[in-house]
Amino acid sequence: MTTTVLVTAFEPFGGETVNPSQQAVSRLADGPATDGVQIRTAVLPVEFGPAVEALRSAVATHDPDLVTCAGEAGGRFGVTPERVAVNVSDAHIPDNAGRSPVDEPVVAGGPVAYFSGLPVAAIVDALRAAGIPADKSSTAGTYVCNSVFYGLMHLIATERPGLVGGFVHVPYVHEQVVDRGDQPSLSLDMITEALRITVQTSVGALAAGH
Amino acid sequence: MTTTVLVTAFEPFGGETVNPSQQAVSRLADGPATDGVQIRTAVLPVEFGPAVEALRSAVATHDPDLVTCAGEAGGRFGVTPERVAVNVSDAHIPDNAGRSPVDEPVVAGGPVAYFSGLPVAAIVDALRAAGIPADKSSTAGTYVCNSVFYGLMHLIATERPGLVGGFVHVPYVHEQVVDRGDQPSLSLDMITEALRITVQTSVGALAAGH
Amino acid sequence: MTTTVLVTAFEPFGGETVNPSQQAVSRLADGPATDGVQIRTAVLPVEFGPAVEALRSAVATHDPDLVTCAGEAGGRFGVTPERVAVNVSDAHIPDNAGRSPVDEPVVAGGPVAYFSGLPVAAIVDALRAAGIPADKSSTAGTYVCNSVFYGLMHLIATERPGLVGGFVHVPYVHEQVVDRGDQPSLSLDMITEALRITVQTSVGALAAGH
Amino acid sequence: MTTTVLVTAFEPFGGETVNPSQQAVSRLADGPATDGVQIRTAVLPVEFGPAVEALRSAVATHDPDLVTCAGEAGGRFGVTPERVAVNVSDAHIPDNAGRSPVDEPVVAGGPVAYFSGLPVAAIVDALRAAGIPADKSSTAGTYVCNSVFYGLMHLIATERPGLVGGFVHVPYVHEQVVDRGDQPSLSLDMITEALRITVQTSVGALAAGH
Repeated sequence: MTTTVLVTAFEPFGGETVNPSQQAVSRLADGPATDGVQIRTAVLPVEFGPAVEALRSAVATHDPDLVTCAGEAGGRFGVTPERVAVNVSDAHIPDNAGRSPVDEPVVAGGPVAYFSGLPVAAIVDALRAAGIPADKSSTAGTYVCNSVFYGLMHLIATERPGLVGGFVHVPYVHEQVVDRGDQPSLSLDMITEALRITVQTSVGALAAGH
Repeated sequence: MTTTVLVTAFEPFGGETVNPSQQAVSRLADGPATDGVQIRTAVLPVEFGPAVEALRSAVATHDPDLVTCAGEAGGRFGVTPERVAVNVSDAHIPDNAGRSPVDEPVVAGGPVAYFSGLPVAAIVDALRAAGIPADKSSTAGTYVCNSVFYGLMHLIATERPGLVGGFVHVPYVHEQVVDRGDQPSLSLDMITEALRITVQTSVGALAAGH
Repeated sequence: MTTTVLVTAFEPFGGETVNPSQQAVSRLADGPATDGVQIRTAVLPVEFGPAVEALRSAVATHDPDLVTCAGEAGGRFGVTPERVAVNVSDAHIPDNAGRSPVDEPVVAGGPVAYFSGLPVAAIVDALRAAGIPADKSSTAGTYVCNSVFYGLMHLIATERPGLVGGFVHVPYVHEQVVDRGDQPSLSLDMITEALRITVQTSVGALAAGH
Repeated sequence: MTTTVLVTAFEPFGGETVNPSQQAVSRLADGPATDGVQIRTAVLPVEFGPAVEALRSAVATHDPDLVTCAGEAGGRFGVTPERVAVNVSDAHIPDNAGRSPVDEPVVAGGPVAYFSGLPVAAIVDALRAAGIPADKSSTAGTYVCNSVFYGLMHLIATERPGLVGGFVHVPYVHEQVVDRGDQPSLSLDMITEALRITVQTSVGALAAGH
């Protein structure tokens, strides 16, 4: 039996010319297949409304068993699976369409928050065991990443009860900070491997019925 | 003609069980040889007096053309060739022999400071060109690293005018921070490659007469 | 008509000998009264279960109109009203009773999260207008602070519908970091003033019916 | 007998509209006089050549016994007396005249570095005793601050052997970071008091013959 996994990434934003999530998801898709796992990918725009629409569309197209959304969290030191999605959008910088919501709900009338469906603690353990700096995160922020994460969990809660999903933030990749001197980063190889481990650990938990 | 390069590292200190400089120098020595470059290595104790003695002894043994000392600078984001060694030892934590000098000279009567003999700007350029986060550093601190750097430059200034030398600090390696969540790190492969580039760039400058 | 405000703080924890929230709340209580506002205070233990019990007891005793819980967030740069309390306790260090819950709910069967009842954005605006570094926070962490915040919001949701409450984190006070060199801090005067402004802004919003 | 102390500050730079050193020196000059100490002040331009010229001119005008230069070091957590001035200018951003020297000497043919003439350790002790976060610094950077510091020490070494001088960096003042959320700062009152203590401790050491 094959498990179909949709892994999403984001376009560059905030003045960056690349997004490590996009680079890593592209490599993941081109990499060696894991037995019984079919990877499907989508790159989402960094725009508050359209990002969630693109995610929903990708879910409709690929009909996955598992969704892992990945995004860039510049300034973080390791890979951080997110614990909770919150029903608020509050932009510190405009999104790629120039929109800056202030304290707006992601889904009007939706619950305050959803927990991730991914095995956050097990993913962190697996990443560290592989030598990858990692930590649980308690906030996905209030920017487009969080809105996609919330939108995904709301879709699951309201329309797709059999689907499992969650979000993982990755740090800058080296090329983004090579001459900055004051920002942490990881190699693209390591971030790609981190996404592979995240998917593998999540598929394993799914198979085990967690 | 062969250029003999002495590359030194330090033992672990400050509660750490490894030192990335030691790991990387060991790998560098085991790695593929560069034509015309003969690598010699030494691991120095993290002790204020004996470290400089061990360096002097290694120089006497190997009679190198170039000396690159490497040390760990936990908390830094990239590889940082040091610009200047200062004639002061001031320990924020005891060294591995339990000694904590406070505002003592490294060499009584020595000059205030020495500039590195390595091509610091060219090394940073070469590291960045190779995709390695790097920056010039203006302080090697006042701990054992700086004392070795100063001791090396003083040896060159007073006894070995034909020798060229300098110091490079490297960040934590991933394994040191994998579960800390608040410290930057690089892979051991990248730190090893950074030392290789540092040596290569320095040898090139030496050959070019800079 | 008088508005009764309960302001809570925490005991020292994590190896610290003081807690800025405790110092500031003590000063706030001793300071000049605001017309129409009666301040009541309580100091909570840094223990996962007893902290919430102590909060509930203080609410029962003082029967306040408004509750502002304050806690220390070492490493933050300014005063940060919290946006959301999450139903999880996950200790990175043991609490003062030696207990370290891992991914446990604060309230079994409780909702995933509650939004703060305080006017977070207005408080940040008022703090900045007074020259105090401040920012909205999207995570109160998963330690005792968050558990008290969640416990408060759950109490309000389930038993005290007329009560309004929330949480604000304050940074280290200068005396905690005077010789550390690598941690941000504010003066006790400023932190006290920040709590006064937080209460005043919240009382104002309450009176205005927000 | 009166000790004349020249305290210098800098104009704003780097996109900032204020410079905490300028604000604090202005307040220091307006504050209560210390018996036996006469304060003279100067505000230097943030321009590599003219800054040193302005300093030399202020020394010529006021003929001080002691010179304390103060400058802004955004990102530092406390007040940091500088230990050593280095003979290099290497700008990471253009100065206020648009000039960006790269690895140039401050004084062609000058020594590599000068130690501060101020009692750095005693100043740090006095600041901490007054509750002010403080630390010794081992680098004044390679921007205009360091060039003024080096220029001062070179002036003393070559033309004014009776003069004592040094440099102290101060962090951002609160108003510069009130809405940034990621930068440390101190109050203007505290920075002013820090300069007062720096001067007082330096005058005391001068009187004691250190």
